[in-house]
Amino acid sequence: MNKQQNILIIGAGLCGSLLALRLGQRGYNVTVMEMRQDLRKVDISAGRSINLAFSDRGNKAMKLVGIEDKVKALCIPMNGRMLHDREGNTMLSNYSGRDHEYINSISRGELNGLLLTEAEKHENVKIHFNKKCKSVDFEKTTALFKDYESNTEFVEDADLIIATDGAGSAMRKSYYLGKKFLFSFSQDYLTHGYKELSILPTETGDYKTYKNALHIWPRGDFMVIALPNLDGSFTVTLFLSFNQGEYNFNNLTTPEKVTEFFQKEFPDALELMPNLVEDFFSNPTAPLGTVKCSPWHYKGNTLLMGDSAHAIVPFYGQGMNASFEDVVEFDKVLDQNLDNWEAVFETYEANRKKDTDAIADLAIDNFHEMKSHVANPIFQEKRKIEMALEQNFPDEYSSKYSLVTFNENVTYRDAMLKGRAQDKAILNMLSDGTLKTDDDLKSILEKVKQETEAILEDDRIAGLK
Amino acid sequence: MNKQQNILIIGAGLCGSLLALRLGQRGYNVTVMEMRQDLRKVDISAGRSINLAFSDRGNKAMKLVGIEDKVKALCIPMNGRMLHDREGNTMLSNYSGRDHEYINSISRGELNGLLLTEAEKHENVKIHFNKKCKSVDFEKTTALFKDYESNTEFVEDADLIIATDGAGSAMRKSYYLGKKFLFSFSQDYLTHGYKELSILPTETGDYKTYKNALHIWPRGDFMVIALPNLDGSFTVTLFLSFNQGEYNFNNLTTPEKVTEFFQKEFPDALELMPNLVEDFFSNPTAPLGTVKCSPWHYKGNTLLMGDSAHAIVPFYGQGMNASFEDVVEFDKVLDQNLDNWEAVFETYEANRKKDTDAIADLAIDNFHEMKSHVANPIFQEKRKIEMALEQNFPDEYSSKYSLVTFNENVTYRDAMLKGRAQDKAILNMLSDGTLKTDDDLKSILEKVKQETEAILEDDRIAGLK
Repeated sequence: MNKQQNILIIGAGLCGSLLALRLGQRGYNVTVMEMRQDLRKVDISAGRSINLAFSDRGNKAMKLVGIEDKVKALCIPMNGRMLHDREGNTMLSNYSGRDHEYINSISRGELNGLLLTEAEKHENVKIHFNKKCKSVDFEKTTALFKDYESNTEFVEDADLIIATDGAGSAMRKSYYLGKKFLFSFSQDYLTHGYKELSILPTETGDYKTYKNALHIWPRGDFMVIALPNLDGSFTVTLFLSFNQGEYNFNNLTTPEKVTEFFQKEFPDALELMPNLVEDFFSNPTAPLGTVKCSPWHYKGNTLLMGDSAHAIVPFYGQGMNASFEDVVEFDKVLDQNLDNWEAVFETYEANRKKDTDAIADLAIDNFHEMKSHVANPIFQEKRKIEMALEQNFPDEYSSKYSLVTFNENVTYRDAMLKGRAQDKAILNMLSDGTLKTDDDLKSILEKVKQETEAILEDDRIAGLK
Repeated sequence: MNKQQNILIIGAGLCGSLLALRLGQRGYNVTVMEMRQDLRKVDISAGRSINLAFSDRGNKAMKLVGIEDKVKALCIPMNGRMLHDREGNTMLSNYSGRDHEYINSISRGELNGLLLTEAEKHENVKIHFNKKCKSVDFEKTTALFKDYESNTEFVEDADLIIATDGAGSAMRKSYYLGKKFLFSFSQDYLTHGYKELSILPTETGDYKTYKNALHIWPRGDFMVIALPNLDGSFTVTLFLSFNQGEYNFNNLTTPEKVTEFFQKEFPDALELMPNLVEDFFSNPTAPLGTVKCSPWHYKGNTLLMGDSAHAIVPFYGQGMNASFEDVVEFDKVLDQNLDNWEAVFETYEANRKKDTDAIADLAIDNFHEMKSHVANPIFQEKRKIEMALEQNFPDEYSSKYSLVTFNENVTYRDAMLKGRAQDKAILNMLSDGTLKTDDDLKSILEKVKQETEAILEDDRIAGLK
């Protein structure tokens, strides 16, 4: 495709700024419009998660654009989950039996800023802030913006438009309301919402609890998690039902009740959070939703990418990684030198949608796993077996979590199919006594492989996914 | 709840008119607003399916309101599927091994007219036509209507509003656009659309092909079906991709091409359809969509019911039956004498949604089964075994189809779980040789039962549905 064409990107969040950088590197004329202020100049974190889990799929994208080392400097490795029970006992459960496999906590703002700076190094990339997209005319390939600085509206014309404007995408809304083509669309909310809290550093700037872990306080129907920040603090998130159970967001309306809830359920966390009540009442409660849609593109004119095409819940730590992987996959299609943008968009969606659907479903599975299964004996037994398999047969076994998180060359869909079958195989063999934790490890490996393959084969024959 | 309250029902289609009848019988003051003309006076079938499959769940509702016999007079029994191959060979495959289990073809218009007439016999029920709902204010419990007769708009106030206004529900749209609460919503289109055609009666008014079957011409990626009407005609439906494959709705643009397509794929049907080309170009091509949403109600003010809450694709012949069953289930909740409408609506949705989700998924499964599996050898072997089991052990075995269609006291969800497990058990045992069609039937039954239970148990342990 002609490099002189003008590409308009709507949204300079994580996905949009990476896409701008990559298309800039490829020589396209890129204009980016972002509704927010430049986050390198103003703190605008309010309402969005402060830190995120960064792992191998995201890193593959960083390698593609050549900034792996710069990103690494922003990362805090988290080797495993540290589970906290009601008595304050902790247990560290590594994410993998292979030492080099871990996830990272990273600041959304720092990473986004880095991507913007790298993108702007290309003179064929222009980024404009305070320009909010209101709608897209996908027939004419134009977008209507409101300029928050001049308080005026203007129309931007482009040869193609890629919307990376997040879960509430204006372009996706134009697809939906336009009714010009059959647009499949879903928004699904969990019964739970979330609220961000914090564990501040000690007076000397140290971490108040173990730094290199993702902390989890699983309580069955609700949970608290915490991820470390570079400044010694942790960003804490409470996941809780809006209106079910003894304590819920609707009835936690007084400082006393909030403190009572934490005292009862998370006493060791409460000790680290003298600022709990203040955080609780000054931070918003936000919903947790999954968005899927199709088609992502209209002819060769417009394309949805990142959260605008597939917003997911945060429980697999894959939201950002999936959006970054979008750019890698899109880049691969560009390498095919297809005839026109319509063919590029079609090929990209045909390759990619099955995988973003899979990670959306996996993320919901993990919501249930994190809340309750991690504290469930049979799941813990499974986890122990999997850790041992990964340690002893590093080239032969990867758990579902490892397949999703550390195997960037296995697609999300393949990771889901194989990972679910493995889980089912181990749980069922543990349950019926075919497998015992003290069996010879090599024989466990063979049994798990065999049973996994049998489960996959049975599903294939029955015409199931 | 106070019987003096005014209940407004939006939409007098199959679900709305049955609901009006039932609430009328229970003594409520009911006002029904319908956007169309009175179909007892004008033929307004255009664009909607002319006949429908009516089976035991629907009949349960007819029994509830006491009009089973009147409905029976409108029914044409269809004992099975008559499969037509490309050479015009036919094979009749009964729906059940039990003779008293069959489905019926029924005219949408006749049945709807009967329900309207029965409802209007109650003086506490008033039905108004030509009143189109434009939006609902679910906080105030009012609805805005356009009166097509006077061309004016008016607001109707009610104590509660139940919207039975179909897949394109105005009230559901108000829920979605209102953004007053977290509204999960999906619309999913198949890649295929449909077009209605017809086989007219012979000159003497007889049926041109076998009357008591649902005819299917399965062709893998597309299919034609035909259901009989009382006047000797059949309503024929072509299900075809919009834009994939050698022949599709987008490229069937000339009489020559349409005739060529039918000549090649459905020659025996073409012989019965001299009117094919005329039908093809005068009838619309319509999409096939599934709609799910939640919550169905807002407080105790408003409730979605029937297609407005759960539109499904037609491949299980359960759309109308599911909507009729809604009324039966709603009626059961009314029998509980709960304190207020909010409790009624909540209980109804908690009981019912899992089942309408299940039939939506089953209907999509059946799209694939009807197109291709019915002509697939291993699926045909399974079908033969199941027929033999149903004939020989009528009290011990029911296929998935029987569970869904003829077992109105098994919920859709239970029918789905058990039916899918049975299918998987039989297909896998046929495939690996554990089961042979000439095995002793009693031993087949035991194996199928045992394997089905094992599959369900494995899924339970793995925490799968």
